[in-house]
Amino acid sequence: MDVLVLLGSSSDLETSKGCTDILKDFGIDFKTIVASAHRTPELVEENIKDAEKSGTKVIIAMAGMAAHLPGVVASKTLIPVIGVPLSSKNTGGMDALYSVVQMPTGYPVATVAIDGSKNAALLAVQLLAINDKKLKKLLQDYRNKMKEAVIKANKEI
Amino acid sequence: MDVLVLLGSSSDLETSKGCTDILKDFGIDFKTIVASAHRTPELVEENIKDAEKSGTKVIIAMAGMAAHLPGVVASKTLIPVIGVPLSSKNTGGMDALYSVVQMPTGYPVATVAIDGSKNAALLAVQLLAINDKKLKKLLQDYRNKMKEAVIKANKEI
Amino acid sequence: MDVLVLLGSSSDLETSKGCTDILKDFGIDFKTIVASAHRTPELVEENIKDAEKSGTKVIIAMAGMAAHLPGVVASKTLIPVIGVPLSSKNTGGMDALYSVVQMPTGYPVATVAIDGSKNAALLAVQLLAINDKKLKKLLQDYRNKMKEAVIKANKEI
Amino acid sequence: MDVLVLLGSSSDLETSKGCTDILKDFGIDFKTIVASAHRTPELVEENIKDAEKSGTKVIIAMAGMAAHLPGVVASKTLIPVIGVPLSSKNTGGMDALYSVVQMPTGYPVATVAIDGSKNAALLAVQLLAINDKKLKKLLQDYRNKMKEAVIKANKEI
Amino acid sequence: MDVLVLLGSSSDLETSKGCTDILKDFGIDFKTIVASAHRTPELVEENIKDAEKSGTKVIIAMAGMAAHLPGVVASKTLIPVIGVPLSSKNTGGMDALYSVVQMPTGYPVATVAIDGSKNAALLAVQLLAINDKKLKKLLQDYRNKMKEAVIKANKEI
Amino acid sequence: MDVLVLLGSSSDLETSKGCTDILKDFGIDFKTIVASAHRTPELVEENIKDAEKSGTKVIIAMAGMAAHLPGVVASKTLIPVIGVPLSSKNTGGMDALYSVVQMPTGYPVATVAIDGSKNAALLAVQLLAINDKKLKKLLQDYRNKMKEAVIKANKEI
Amino acid sequence: MDVLVLLGSSSDLETSKGCTDILKDFGIDFKTIVASAHRTPELVEENIKDAEKSGTKVIIAMAGMAAHLPGVVASKTLIPVIGVPLSSKNTGGMDALYSVVQMPTGYPVATVAIDGSKNAALLAVQLLAINDKKLKKLLQDYRNKMKEAVIKANKEI
Amino acid sequence: MDVLVLLGSSSDLETSKGCTDILKDFGIDFKTIVASAHRTPELVEENIKDAEKSGTKVIIAMAGMAAHLPGVVASKTLIPVIGVPLSSKNTGGMDALYSVVQMPTGYPVATVAIDGSKNAALLAVQLLAINDKKLKKLLQDYRNKMKEAVIKANKEI
Repeated sequence: MDVLVLLGSSSDLETSKGCTDILKDFGIDFKTIVASAHRTPELVEENIKDAEKSGTKVIIAMAGMAAHLPGVVASKTLIPVIGVPLSSKNTGGMDALYSVVQMPTGYPVATVAIDGSKNAALLAVQLLAINDKKLKKLLQDYRNKMKEAVIKANKEI
Repeated sequence: MDVLVLLGSSSDLETSKGCTDILKDFGIDFKTIVASAHRTPELVEENIKDAEKSGTKVIIAMAGMAAHLPGVVASKTLIPVIGVPLSSKNTGGMDALYSVVQMPTGYPVATVAIDGSKNAALLAVQLLAINDKKLKKLLQDYRNKMKEAVIKANKEI
Repeated sequence: MDVLVLLGSSSDLETSKGCTDILKDFGIDFKTIVASAHRTPELVEENIKDAEKSGTKVIIAMAGMAAHLPGVVASKTLIPVIGVPLSSKNTGGMDALYSVVQMPTGYPVATVAIDGSKNAALLAVQLLAINDKKLKKLLQDYRNKMKEAVIKANKEI
Repeated sequence: MDVLVLLGSSSDLETSKGCTDILKDFGIDFKTIVASAHRTPELVEENIKDAEKSGTKVIIAMAGMAAHLPGVVASKTLIPVIGVPLSSKNTGGMDALYSVVQMPTGYPVATVAIDGSKNAALLAVQLLAINDKKLKKLLQDYRNKMKEAVIKANKEI
Repeated sequence: MDVLVLLGSSSDLETSKGCTDILKDFGIDFKTIVASAHRTPELVEENIKDAEKSGTKVIIAMAGMAAHLPGVVASKTLIPVIGVPLSSKNTGGMDALYSVVQMPTGYPVATVAIDGSKNAALLAVQLLAINDKKLKKLLQDYRNKMKEAVIKANKEI
Repeated sequence: MDVLVLLGSSSDLETSKGCTDILKDFGIDFKTIVASAHRTPELVEENIKDAEKSGTKVIIAMAGMAAHLPGVVASKTLIPVIGVPLSSKNTGGMDALYSVVQMPTGYPVATVAIDGSKNAALLAVQLLAINDKKLKKLLQDYRNKMKEAVIKANKEI
Repeated sequence: MDVLVLLGSSSDLETSKGCTDILKDFGIDFKTIVASAHRTPELVEENIKDAEKSGTKVIIAMAGMAAHLPGVVASKTLIPVIGVPLSSKNTGGMDALYSVVQMPTGYPVATVAIDGSKNAALLAVQLLAINDKKLKKLLQDYRNKMKEAVIKANKEI
Repeated sequence: MDVLVLLGSSSDLETSKGCTDILKDFGIDFKTIVASAHRTPELVEENIKDAEKSGTKVIIAMAGMAAHLPGVVASKTLIPVIGVPLSSKNTGGMDALYSVVQMPTGYPVATVAIDGSKNAALLAVQLLAINDKKLKKLLQDYRNKMKEAVIKANKEI
């Protein structure tokens, strides 16, 4: 398994699809686990250990509100952690953004935009592509398609 | 030990004095430990276990930035946790406030004001006083002194 | 009565159900009163006095906007006060959060998340459980159920 | 006494000078009292009753953090209340602004700028001037002087 | 005319009903004018002059976004101005709150809550009641009714 | 006079130097006037009329707090207005930014960064350069110098 | 072509209609291009070069989130750039406002309100009108119509 | 060169030392370049091309205010970009945080804390360590030292 996707709550499954669909499209070997930092700390630790054993290269962690999951994961492994702060009803995700990005020295979380589930996947692919030319090629194709979509949009104005 | 005071960083020692001085004044049996949620998760867990064994009734946890410590502690024990969000250079403590107060269902943190170190101690004393008339009396004295200070201030205007 | 639940407005009754349902489930002896800090200060004081007489151990107070209720209650009794800042239309509850959490030294309010009605109940149960092993057991069961729900969610992914 | 000035803390005395100096300059009959909404609620009520007996026409209340004082005063009298949210170390006074201005229907507080101690005095004078032509004249003079200061500043550029 | 109600835009008419209904209920002699500070500065000035001639005692001004209207009115008359910051789509009314409340020394605006249209009316009535015992009596009745509504709500829980 | 620089207060003179020094360096014909939107509305109008008569092409207006000046100027002339929101003690200039940028349809203010005094001048020069090749050349030189400074900085690392 | 309208995404086309309808009404010669700063930097540069060749006098750039487009355009041309920060789901457009307005010295963006698409057009017309009396006349007519609408609204109250 | 460190301004050199000192300590082959996204876009592109040629695996980009640099770099290469939002005088770095983290789909920036210069380096080392056991060992040593420092701090309380 190259990428482990951790969700703080089963209610995040819908948002996580933006992430996992992209991982699938790029043919990444990944697993999705719901594992709350507070409700199931053992499940979090267990999955981190499995990830380390199976040579996982990147962990993506998503959570809302006092979104401790990405930081807690980062504190328990040297595998790079990508954090996705999720919006909730009242604060537009500012609480989660602060909780994910403002990590103390030693335990960085690579934070993407609020609800930036897709970009978490793409960042993971970029990290894997550092040593994988085929993946780099696929990423370039992905960007080319986005570019073409913009050009096409102009023709339809 | 009735109260365990956990600091996220040794740089929080000065702010914690506002808390520990009051605990001392009220004659509370307490211990202060520096134990970062990210740098020393084992130390945090160890101290929580010690606290549970020794019948600790309240834990006070202080941290700044992505202040995970209070929430992480709350997830590992049924002992009530009082959280103190600490200010740091850039955000005036809003990052810590959000990270401490916006806990998910099941794992509340009793949050006090940003840098509210003294009130954390007083809230702890109030919790202990639920079943301790002597402590209740001391709290009432403390409030009376504050009241008198206000009345005295008026005489000096 | 062990817990007194005070609502700043009758429009908060729906949100308060998250709190009172949990209190009921844990078999807590409680009472719910609508008592605005501004509209009915006498009703607030009256209920605080009743609470003190009947040995109430925790007061939960919920309010929105310039949510003074929790702080006003805290200033009139030594019974610990749990404050729930409620969201309203424009500010996402930031006004209430500030009004509830930023209390001056001497009068702490144990603040939970914006609209954190359920966690207010659970924190109250935790406070009562300090000296009640049966309640502590029920809390542990509650957490176990949440844990199992997470584990079950993983099987359904 | 025409105006009662209430300060939430003796530490607000310096900021209040901006207010009281102007009241003096306009020859207003006023009194300054330090009376915390939380520490000395009785002192607050006492002074409100005195104010009502002595025909006080406006109350100015200043407080910082969870600045409940102006709202609490407004809930206990029909005398109009001018509220001054005071800044403190961490939040730049946003906590106080929200706590003062976001009052529920029925209990308005006439809020001025953060630390707007001078404008609280000038607003009080404007209210008194509704039925006092001499005061209106003095206010007009005050504004004229400000205007002249601007014109003079231009000559010195 | 005792009160002049100025709206920054005809789209504010609905929100203003909260204000004007209360003024009607209290039997206040008032007039509502739509007069944008930017689109129709002459109309604003004209109405201020009319207000001054007809002995108007309070002006209520409501506006959203960069809500200059209340401040602009305050700069052109000594009649006290009550400002109502109105919410709009993106910022929850924070832009309007800042634009209304943060006035420079000399030109205070008595600011009420975001969308606090009703409280603007009640504050105006309080100002008029300073010298009108009958109005004071009506205000007391209004507060009594609110109190009774709270008490009644408790019976229906 | 090609550019009129309006300051809301004489205390803004120091910040305005960042602007006026650049206007001088580019040889722009300009005038600086202190003219508060609230204290001296007539002075503001007078200077706008003078500006219109003398063919002024751009007005730069700077103000802090409830920074109405740029918007008030924009409402009184068709000359484009560049607004500079100025920071003050408590809010870091957010109040001014909102008051300057959130203008209603019909009366735009071309807003630059908080305290962006220099960029106000450079934007004015860009507007004048639309029809002035010599000025465009000077602007290009200015940008080239900034570029060279960056390149030089690299040599000194 | 006098005005180039750049949209960061084809999803901004609807908001841009507020802008382009006004440009049409004023008879401005303009072109709309979708050109993301990140997805199609070459398309952005290409269109800037075309704009410079064809004597374009103003560029309007709209974008949401980390809205780099206006600033990136400003860095590549001396043609004045009007920036429109667009709101998106979570932050109410504050992210875009900051990204557009807080430009460093040398590269100002003339920023209008969040979603201020119409005002971007009107500001562009004002810039063109500096040297075009006919356009100035049309702008005055536009403002007169807005004024009349306000006056008419008063008749219908 | 394994890591390229890009600074938006030479004034960021001091903050960047937190980053570069760590890179040195870990024996990383890196280069620091000052290259503003707006002032020297060519220099940015040039260095990105050099980085791609020399097999650079991570780019760290730091910038303040409307911090476009990290996003602009991310749009021009598939090399993963770590972004450091820098605080400046007025907004505490919120402007930079939003500009760096809120990137559109396709162009993620791995964002660390405001002024999180050290964590940017450590995250870069973590990325390089994915395929470098020796580096992983050094990282573990670094974390162990931090842990020991905490334990030592407890002995000195």
